[in-house]
Amino acid sequence: MSREFFVTNTLQEAKAELDKNYRMQLPEAETSTILEALDRVVAEDVVSPIDLPTFTRSTMDGYAVRSGDTHGASDQSPIYLNLVGEIGMGEEPKIGLKVTEAVKISTGGMLPKESDAVVMVEYTEKVGDQVEIVKAVAPGENTMQKGEDVQKGSIVLGQGQVIQTQDIGILAGIGLTGLKVFRRPKVAIISTGDEIVNADEDVPPGKIRDINSLSLAASVSKDGAIPILKGIVKDDFKALKARLDEALKEADLVLVSGGSSVGTRDVTLDVIDATGKPGVLVHGISMKPGKPTIIAVCQNKPVFGLSGHPGAALVVYRFLVSPFLRRLRGEMLNRNLDMPRTLKAKLDVNIVSTNGRADFVRVELLEKDGQTWAKPLYGSSGLLKTLLKADGIVYVPLEKSGLKKGQEVLVELL
Amino acid sequence: MSREFFVTNTLQEAKAELDKNYRMQLPEAETSTILEALDRVVAEDVVSPIDLPTFTRSTMDGYAVRSGDTHGASDQSPIYLNLVGEIGMGEEPKIGLKVTEAVKISTGGMLPKESDAVVMVEYTEKVGDQVEIVKAVAPGENTMQKGEDVQKGSIVLGQGQVIQTQDIGILAGIGLTGLKVFRRPKVAIISTGDEIVNADEDVPPGKIRDINSLSLAASVSKDGAIPILKGIVKDDFKALKARLDEALKEADLVLVSGGSSVGTRDVTLDVIDATGKPGVLVHGISMKPGKPTIIAVCQNKPVFGLSGHPGAALVVYRFLVSPFLRRLRGEMLNRNLDMPRTLKAKLDVNIVSTNGRADFVRVELLEKDGQTWAKPLYGSSGLLKTLLKADGIVYVPLEKSGLKKGQEVLVELL
Repeated sequence: MSREFFVTNTLQEAKAELDKNYRMQLPEAETSTILEALDRVVAEDVVSPIDLPTFTRSTMDGYAVRSGDTHGASDQSPIYLNLVGEIGMGEEPKIGLKVTEAVKISTGGMLPKESDAVVMVEYTEKVGDQVEIVKAVAPGENTMQKGEDVQKGSIVLGQGQVIQTQDIGILAGIGLTGLKVFRRPKVAIISTGDEIVNADEDVPPGKIRDINSLSLAASVSKDGAIPILKGIVKDDFKALKARLDEALKEADLVLVSGGSSVGTRDVTLDVIDATGKPGVLVHGISMKPGKPTIIAVCQNKPVFGLSGHPGAALVVYRFLVSPFLRRLRGEMLNRNLDMPRTLKAKLDVNIVSTNGRADFVRVELLEKDGQTWAKPLYGSSGLLKTLLKADGIVYVPLEKSGLKKGQEVLVELL
Repeated sequence: MSREFFVTNTLQEAKAELDKNYRMQLPEAETSTILEALDRVVAEDVVSPIDLPTFTRSTMDGYAVRSGDTHGASDQSPIYLNLVGEIGMGEEPKIGLKVTEAVKISTGGMLPKESDAVVMVEYTEKVGDQVEIVKAVAPGENTMQKGEDVQKGSIVLGQGQVIQTQDIGILAGIGLTGLKVFRRPKVAIISTGDEIVNADEDVPPGKIRDINSLSLAASVSKDGAIPILKGIVKDDFKALKARLDEALKEADLVLVSGGSSVGTRDVTLDVIDATGKPGVLVHGISMKPGKPTIIAVCQNKPVFGLSGHPGAALVVYRFLVSPFLRRLRGEMLNRNLDMPRTLKAKLDVNIVSTNGRADFVRVELLEKDGQTWAKPLYGSSGLLKTLLKADGIVYVPLEKSGLKKGQEVLVELL
């Protein structure tokens, strides 16, 4: 029965098929402390309850004045203002500032409401109970206005944004103690194959340790989701069916990796298809590595069948599963999030590809003549060492039969 | 006493001064499970105890053969070999392969020791107890050799490497259950200033909430270290001295942020200098923002005094503290680690700078005409919003008086 599914889709078609059949919903929200919110996704727009700063502050050490009083002040014709005191740090000025009066102020100090500018200390001299001013200031000069950083009622962080280091500071600044973030999705990971043994077991001849469970779990963690290791299942319909049912109960998304043989692929396909409607949506994507990839929806949860080859599994994870999982965790993908992950480089040698198949070529980045070069690393998709050495991946589109040496390419950084 | 330290160093000179006075040692090692090792630093070279794969495997579904037996096989003159069985997945072949014999094998299956290649199933046909072969194979064809991925005794991960997603898989593959990683450094964070109140407190007029403690703590976590929040201290010699002494006992590195006024800066400087030899090494760096930065070594621990301006504190953290902290956690900085953090872009407008001062200009990245453009975001160093909007920072070197529109610049991604 499996053969009928074996159609060749492009990666884009495969993604569209999944989107058509899976009703993506926003995850539930939960409350996080500010510091623990780092790298989490904002669940509700954060609206500032206050102006930041909450008052007009000095950005220099000097004297708070009415700017009009300094009009025309210069080295040649200094102006003298009456010094009426000093504003202590963190204090509300108690001094009302009359015309031709000045008050000493430090950086960060609160301006008296009658003053509108600060003269830097460098342009002043204290002369008895007066201050000599040799430079005029414009209204607002050397001050940070109330609400200049954040206006009361403005959206500081929007729903779907991933919280970065610099966001944590502003959340503290507006006085939030906690905020709503999306719950982290759970991702169950199943490894299949008669030849697979646990990573911590001895390996009899003919068998191989389970690489994919842990490398996929690490990838899932990196994407801000919670991996659930569901262990290894033999190439057996009933055993895999039971494990998949269990996984679908516990997780929001299921990854089934391997085995690499035709027999295992068939069992995996049949089990996934028997586990719920609509079942298998895509079997086979015209990409290399990653051709035998399965995409399914069972019990309204997405299920991905990945190659048993560790290198291939990670490439498909990166280009198919990861963007989907990030949307699943409520992330609104935008320029800011994707930017740091790509880089332009020149190709070091020709890349030969097959027209009608998208190739994902692992590359090493080299700096030469002030230019970044991408050097392809060749090796079978089962080889881990090309992934270990790789800095990124160059994508050769379906319609191209290759890329030329010296050509500028976009490298997806790993 | 503080004035004598006020010398203007370049950032490079400042870093060199610290390196000269601080004896950097490798951190202690501790054992981690493989999965928890993600993003940690390798403390001891990981040497593979085995060849990976542990046996020569087939990379295709087909027939394992002696390649010599297929010599000359083609559509026109097929060759017939005697089919002597099938190798089950995960099994050691029990069949000895004689000349002109073939055995069925699946992808990932173990080759009989007498065979040296696999004929893909597409080029074969089963005819009774024989298999017809229409394509010759070379020695090694369609196989992955024992040890091709990792050779027994080779270094899989070197000391100082940061463990990435793809490394986790190989650690599983070679059967490690745990490995030695460096202990995470502890970083104490103190905020100073009479105007600072806790982020979760109400703000009376003239005061401002503590932004730096949390944004620095988030940065420290991102760098793989453990932040210890030491709270807010008033501008008072004795109080700050007591807090700094406590911090030096608990942490491997201390950050003192703010206050922004001259008075606070003086207290901070005097306290740091009184807390141990050699004390303050650098006071003032010719960079903007970040000029009033303090670098010190007290009780053989590095102490950094950062600006109270949140934007300035984060820039100095990024360019001074972060690279130091990453070395402190045992990271051997190399191309792989630094690469993803920079990107080339064209400058959107002229940047005017002062010769003799390094400027760190926050920029937004824009895609236009298939080209990445860096657009400077202006605002005082106290403004958080320029940091929130910023994708990265463009560095204007000391000796330049600016950068020209259209010029290619290197953007450090935030």
